Amino acid sequence: MKSLRLVVYTVVILLLTGMKIQKPMKVVFFGDSITQAGVRPGGYITMMQEALKGYELIGAGIGGNKVYDLYLRLESDVLDKKPDMTVIYVGVNDVWHKQTSQTGTDPDKFTGFYSALIKKMQSAGIKVILCTPAVIGERTDFSNAQDGDLNRYSQIIRDLSKQYNCPLVDLRKEFLAYNLANNPMNKESGILTTDRVHLNPGGNKLVADLMMKAITSVQK
Amino acid sequence: MKSLRLVVYTVVILLLTGMKIQKPMKVVFFGDSITQAGVRPGGYITMMQEALKGYELIGAGIGGNKVYDLYLRLESDVLDKKPDMTVIYVGVNDVWHKQTSQTGTDPDKFTGFYSALIKKMQSAGIKVILCTPAVIGERTDFSNAQDGDLNRYSQIIRDLSKQYNCPLVDLRKEFLAYNLANNPMNKESGILTTDRVHLNPGGNKLVADLMMKAITSVQK
Amino acid sequence: MKSLRLVVYTVVILLLTGMKIQKPMKVVFFGDSITQAGVRPGGYITMMQEALKGYELIGAGIGGNKVYDLYLRLESDVLDKKPDMTVIYVGVNDVWHKQTSQTGTDPDKFTGFYSALIKKMQSAGIKVILCTPAVIGERTDFSNAQDGDLNRYSQIIRDLSKQYNCPLVDLRKEFLAYNLANNPMNKESGILTTDRVHLNPGGNKLVADLMMKAITSVQK
Amino acid sequence: MKSLRLVVYTVVILLLTGMKIQKPMKVVFFGDSITQAGVRPGGYITMMQEALKGYELIGAGIGGNKVYDLYLRLESDVLDKKPDMTVIYVGVNDVWHKQTSQTGTDPDKFTGFYSALIKKMQSAGIKVILCTPAVIGERTDFSNAQDGDLNRYSQIIRDLSKQYNCPLVDLRKEFLAYNLANNPMNKESGILTTDRVHLNPGGNKLVADLMMKAITSVQK
Repeated sequence: MKSLRLVVYTVVILLLTGMKIQKPMKVVFFGDSITQAGVRPGGYITMMQEALKGYELIGAGIGGNKVYDLYLRLESDVLDKKPDMTVIYVGVNDVWHKQTSQTGTDPDKFTGFYSALIKKMQSAGIKVILCTPAVIGERTDFSNAQDGDLNRYSQIIRDLSKQYNCPLVDLRKEFLAYNLANNPMNKESGILTTDRVHLNPGGNKLVADLMMKAITSVQK
Repeated sequence: MKSLRLVVYTVVILLLTGMKIQKPMKVVFFGDSITQAGVRPGGYITMMQEALKGYELIGAGIGGNKVYDLYLRLESDVLDKKPDMTVIYVGVNDVWHKQTSQTGTDPDKFTGFYSALIKKMQSAGIKVILCTPAVIGERTDFSNAQDGDLNRYSQIIRDLSKQYNCPLVDLRKEFLAYNLANNPMNKESGILTTDRVHLNPGGNKLVADLMMKAITSVQK
Repeated sequence: MKSLRLVVYTVVILLLTGMKIQKPMKVVFFGDSITQAGVRPGGYITMMQEALKGYELIGAGIGGNKVYDLYLRLESDVLDKKPDMTVIYVGVNDVWHKQTSQTGTDPDKFTGFYSALIKKMQSAGIKVILCTPAVIGERTDFSNAQDGDLNRYSQIIRDLSKQYNCPLVDLRKEFLAYNLANNPMNKESGILTTDRVHLNPGGNKLVADLMMKAITSVQK
Repeated sequence: MKSLRLVVYTVVILLLTGMKIQKPMKVVFFGDSITQAGVRPGGYITMMQEALKGYELIGAGIGGNKVYDLYLRLESDVLDKKPDMTVIYVGVNDVWHKQTSQTGTDPDKFTGFYSALIKKMQSAGIKVILCTPAVIGERTDFSNAQDGDLNRYSQIIRDLSKQYNCPLVDLRKEFLAYNLANNPMNKESGILTTDRVHLNPGGNKLVADLMMKAITSVQK
C-alpha cells in the first residue's frame, strides 16, 4: 500500500511539474507601429520568440497608438488574454503627433493614462515592464526637433517605473549610447532606424537583446 | 375591517407615491470647463436645477477635458453615481487644443472614444443625451480659425446621435442661428460668450433652455 | 511729295504696329505650387497663353511659398522682369502649414507682407491683381479643417484689394459656388482639385477663365 | 609764429578729437522682445551703453519678431541708420511660435532669410555679429520641449557665422554652461530668465558681458 501511495504521489507531482512546463510564460507587447512591426519576420518580437524557450510572446501593437489608445483597448487586448507579463512601449506618437497633426498628448495626461494602465494591469496580477520611447531622429547632439519632449516623456516613464516598481527598458538611453558610438556623421536615420522612428535590422537586434534581458530577469 | 383595509391601501399608495417623489431623476452633466462653470451661480446647470422639479442635476465637468479624459473617469464620475441620464458636452478642447498645445484629438479617435462612452453608459441603462460643441469664436461667416474642425466634429456627433439613438442638443447650430440674428457686427465674443468659448449670462440662458427641453423630453 | 507722305505714313504705321507687336503685355504670375503647376501643359497659365494674343505670361510660382517667401524674391522674380502686371496668388501655405509643420503665417504678418508686396509693385508702376486662396478641401459645409482660416485670410485679401484699389479674382468664392452646384456628395477632392489643393483639369479651366477675365479687364 | 603754430596744433587736435567724439561706433541691436527689453533700465543694452565709451548703441527689437520680420524692416530699421555694426539676435520665436500659434519658421527658410540679412548688411559695409537663441526653458537635461529645435537652429546660425565670417555670440552654449553650474535643481526658469525666455538681472548681466566682449573685439 505504501509503495502504491508513493507511486501515486510521484505521478501527481510529475503531472503538476509537467503542467508547469507545458504552461509557458505569456507576455503581451502593448504598443504602437513599432510593436506592430515587431512581430514580422526579422522583427524584435519574432527574434525573441525564436530565442526564448518557455515563453509565449503576443504582439498587441497598432500603428498610430498613443497612451490613451492603449487604455481604450486594455481590456480586450491585454486583460482578456490573461498574460503573466506586459511590456508597454508607447510614447513616440504622443510626442510626434504634436508636430504631424497637432494631436499629441499633454504631459500630465500622458502620466495619468500611463499610471491607469499600470494600476489596472498590476491589479490583475500582471508584471509590467516599461520602455522609454527610443528616437524620432538619430542625431546625437539633441538637435532632433522632438528631442526635448522625448527626453521629458522618457523621464516621466522612468519616474513611473520607480513609483510602481516596474522594470524599465530605457531604450532612449540605450539608443543614444549606441548612436554616440556608431553615428559619427550625426545622421538622422540609418543607424538603428529606417526612417528616424521605425527599426532597421540593427534596431530590432538591439531592442530584442535589451527586452530579452528584462523579460528573463522577472521572477516567474 | 373595510375601513382598516382602506387605510392600509391609502398608506401604501402614499408610501409608493412618496418614494417616487423622494427619488428624483438623476442627471449627470459630463464635460469640460463649460460644464464645470455650469454649476456656479448663474450657470446653466444651476438655472435648470432652479427651474426643474423632480430632477437632481450633478455637474461632472473638469477644465481642459477632451473625449478621452471623459473615458478615463467614466466609471468614477458617471457609472458609480448610477444616474438615469447623462448629458455629454465635449469637443471644444478636442479641436481647440490642436492650436493651443498641439494636443487635440484626431477625428477617428474622437469617434472611437465617443462611441465607447455611449455604449458603456447605455449598457448600464443610462439615457444619453449628446451636445455639439457650440463655438470657438462667434463670427458668423465661418472665419473663426476652428470653424472647419468644429463643423466636422459636430457632424460626427450628429451621426453618433442617430447611430445610437440618442437625443441631440445641437448647440453649434443654435449658437450660429442666435449669432446670425444678434451679432450684426460679426464680433468674436460678447454675444453668448465672454471669451469666444465660455458662456456669458445670455449663453447660459440659451443652453439652459435648450438642455431643459431635451432632458424633459426623455421618457422617464 | 505724295509718295514721300505715303512712305512716311507707312513707316509710322509699321513702327506703331511694330512697337505693339514687339511689346506684348507682360504678366507675372507670382505664387506657390499651384502657380508653379500652372505653366505645365494643361495648366491654367498655359491655357491662358494659348488663348490670349498680345500677352506674355510668365510663371513665377515656387512650391511651398508663403507670402513672406514672395517678398524675399520680389526683386529678382518680379521687379527685375519689369512686367506690366502681376497676379499674386498666395495664402494656401500660410494657412495649411500651420497644420502640416507649425510654420503658417500669423494674420497680422500676412497682412503686413502682402501690403508690402503691393506697395513695392505699385511704386514700380505694375498693375497688381489679387486672388483669394481657393480651397484646402472641397467640402461645401465649411467642415474642411482649414475653412475658418481660409475664410479669414481671404477676407484680408478682399480688404487689401479695396484698400490698394487692385482687381480681385475671388477664387475662394467661385470655388465654393462651383462646388455647391457640382459636389452634391460633399467630397473632399475630385471636383476642381486632385488632392484637395492642386487643380485638376476642371480647376485649371475655371481658374483660367476667371483670371483671363481679370487680366483683360485691366486698362492697358 | 609760435602762437600761430600752437593755434594750428590745437585746432588740429580739437578737430581730430572732435571727429572721434562726434563719430562713435554705431551699433544696432536687431531682434525680438528680448532685444526690445534690452534697452530698458537694467537691460543688457542699457548696461553696455553705461560701460562702453565711444559707442552708440541703438535698440531695434520688436516683440514677436522672427527672422523674416527682421528682413521686412531691414531697410528702415538698420540700413537707413547707417550703423558700423549690427548684432542680430533672433530665433526664439521662429522655434517657439511653432508651439504657441503654429507659425514658426521652417529651417530652410530660416537659413534663407538669415543669409539674406547678412548679405544685405555686409554689402552696405556693416560688420555683422550673430547670436544663437539662448533658451526656451532652462532645464539642463535637454528636456525643454523646444530644445531639439533650438539646438538645430543654433547650429544653423553657427554655420552661417563661419560661412559669412561673422563673429558669434553663442548664447545657447553659454546659457547651458551657466545653468549646468548654477541650476542644480533643473528648474525651468529663475536662473537667467524670469519666464523661461526673457532675461532676469542675472541674464542681462551675462548677455551684456558676452556681447560687450564681441563688440569690442571687432576691428574698428
